[in-house]
Amino acid sequence: MENLILLPEEENALRIEKLRAAASVTLPENTREEDAALLIADNATVYYLTGRVFSGWAYIPLDREARPFWFVRRPVGLKGEGVMEIRKPEDIPVRLAEQGVKLPRTVGMELSITPYNDIIRLQKCFPGATTFNVSPAVSVARSVKTPMEISMMERSGIKQEAVYRKIPKLYTPGMTDIELDVAIENLSRLEGCLGQFRISGQSMEFFMGNVLTGNNADVPTPYDFALGGRGQDPSLPVGASGAAIMPETTVSVDVNGNYTGYMTDMTRVFTCGQIPEEARRAHDCSIAIHREFRRRALPGTPAADLYNMAFEMAKEAGFERNFMGHRQHASFCGHGVGIEINEMPVIAPRSRDILALNNAIALEPKFVFPGVGAVGIENTYIITAEGARCITNAPEELIPLH
Amino acid sequence: MENLILLPEEENALRIEKLRAAASVTLPENTREEDAALLIADNATVYYLTGRVFSGWAYIPLDREARPFWFVRRPVGLKGEGVMEIRKPEDIPVRLAEQGVKLPRTVGMELSITPYNDIIRLQKCFPGATTFNVSPAVSVARSVKTPMEISMMERSGIKQEAVYRKIPKLYTPGMTDIELDVAIENLSRLEGCLGQFRISGQSMEFFMGNVLTGNNADVPTPYDFALGGRGQDPSLPVGASGAAIMPETTVSVDVNGNYTGYMTDMTRVFTCGQIPEEARRAHDCSIAIHREFRRRALPGTPAADLYNMAFEMAKEAGFERNFMGHRQHASFCGHGVGIEINEMPVIAPRSRDILALNNAIALEPKFVFPGVGAVGIENTYIITAEGARCITNAPEELIPLH
Repeated sequence: MENLILLPEEENALRIEKLRAAASVTLPENTREEDAALLIADNATVYYLTGRVFSGWAYIPLDREARPFWFVRRPVGLKGEGVMEIRKPEDIPVRLAEQGVKLPRTVGMELSITPYNDIIRLQKCFPGATTFNVSPAVSVARSVKTPMEISMMERSGIKQEAVYRKIPKLYTPGMTDIELDVAIENLSRLEGCLGQFRISGQSMEFFMGNVLTGNNADVPTPYDFALGGRGQDPSLPVGASGAAIMPETTVSVDVNGNYTGYMTDMTRVFTCGQIPEEARRAHDCSIAIHREFRRRALPGTPAADLYNMAFEMAKEAGFERNFMGHRQHASFCGHGVGIEINEMPVIAPRSRDILALNNAIALEPKFVFPGVGAVGIENTYIITAEGARCITNAPEELIPLH
Repeated sequence: MENLILLPEEENALRIEKLRAAASVTLPENTREEDAALLIADNATVYYLTGRVFSGWAYIPLDREARPFWFVRRPVGLKGEGVMEIRKPEDIPVRLAEQGVKLPRTVGMELSITPYNDIIRLQKCFPGATTFNVSPAVSVARSVKTPMEISMMERSGIKQEAVYRKIPKLYTPGMTDIELDVAIENLSRLEGCLGQFRISGQSMEFFMGNVLTGNNADVPTPYDFALGGRGQDPSLPVGASGAAIMPETTVSVDVNGNYTGYMTDMTRVFTCGQIPEEARRAHDCSIAIHREFRRRALPGTPAADLYNMAFEMAKEAGFERNFMGHRQHASFCGHGVGIEINEMPVIAPRSRDILALNNAIALEPKFVFPGVGAVGIENTYIITAEGARCITNAPEELIPLH
């Protein structure tokens, strides 16, 4: 038997409190906290709350006096206060009643991510109760990192930096983009990368990394990633395509930084021979945008203002048409990151997110030039009272490959 | 501009017809095919229908005289009959009306996998229409492979066999399970493996492969996989754990066979020094179960009968308690496979699936012995009129590592 909760006690309590606080402000009108509870099944949020993934449901009453329950289907053998082994969701109300818990009249479920039929089934377990969507509250709670989470992200950043510094040694002339990609994947895994690239939702699919060179950087993908690429196969149309890395092109490397369950997100650009001056200038523009972001990304700043700042700098430098893509443009130039790659806040023109202390944000102002490739770097930042603190500190300039 | 449909014309028509036929028999009572249409957004099924992944919806009227529409959000630049670029689901009824299409009164949606709020939003696009769940019909249609799909699976199988034959060369004494795992991943990627391990639904997460040795094979996981393992990190608790590969243990290797968008699934077992006689006998029992399966897995056979056959053979050999796990047992010993790893039919005691010609099934009767590891092989089979034809033909016996 081992404890279900792997987090230190205070950390577990802190995260539950953060989720309760975020959920309380999204409760339907006239709902009392004492009558409301949350049911969480998503692996990423279960991991957030407990420090482990299990199959089942976290039951979090909004009443601070009431204790959570952990309804576990798998694995067997977990113990701790409130841990209950069950087989199916219908067991939840039965077990709650056995414990003398009054069933909630309002149940927060993950309506943005849980399949329709699963929600209908859960609703039937709580007849007469009102359902509300807890997904926005989960996003808000998880977007503000705790000191422990920040330290896990910092550890990922240090590992990812070490991998990036070794990339030039992996290159040999004549390589294809996939060969370099696979070499970077292998190095990452040997350095302890978990491989998994966790994305909320099912519509965006991705393997470990994205190595883009030449025209392939300009191939539109189905995904709203700030990346292009035909991919190896139409079943997974993103990233390296098998093309040879040619002289006078760039190689943009954006690979998996998941070393601790918390990801950092980082892009660096390598050059093969001389590249056009405009691509060099656009790369410098990206670095300048990062410099401004570090200064201006303060708690309270609207995320849309930061997008607009980046866009205006790109436009002023004459690269409006290349910013965040060329044939197809990404709808954002930065995003929250942590357990998943697509967290809040989103740095986008219509974003209503406001930056908060201890947000973790990956900023990726990139430019695509047909025939050359992509330029522009990506860093992961922690938002502090003094601005954005970078936790992916590898050299930012263009790095020649020989 | 490139064609949206990447499949040959007849193949595209055949797959649409298979889906229509499966959906027709699951229509709500008193619904006429002329009044019904399907809306498909899941990447795996979009890929099935078109040969590519795009973000958007496939609109398939059940009336054979009516043509499908392909509503595309991303990527830009796709062309072909019925291709319509849209921004949001609300555009679908508008564009249909522009084309003179009468809106369907019954709409099949993927209620088993699409998030609740996405379904509610789609339902509002078709006010007054009835919704039904098309997920079961999708599973049935996709479970019977076309000759083209079988040939893609055969190509994956041949690549995967080649990787497995080289595994003994990757081993060096003193290696950890993760080191061997990473070496196999790297070899797989160099042989053309796409890396992506496609699983329907969000609850099961997995990276590329599962290398289990010694006691780690007996660690329960949250997932209903026929695998154990603590994993590298509690955020992804399955598979290799970093333990050294010790003498007198087995190393069970079950790694990604996705080389074509269609996966084969295969497990082989390697031994480090002498292993206990009972583990050897259980491995032979697994091979014997496969032998029986090849003969008895005929079209029309209930999947439950095949599970029971396997279980009875395991029991008769004295390995009932080790069958499909030891501390925790998987609820099945085989599963459909293709674009995703968890397809129909399921070889399980309560399965109601009936085998059909051209099903693709991964059979994996495995046994776990504490302190030793897992034994038993997995092969992928195509169901033919003469029985199950194996498409993962590497040596099946225990393979010593030196």
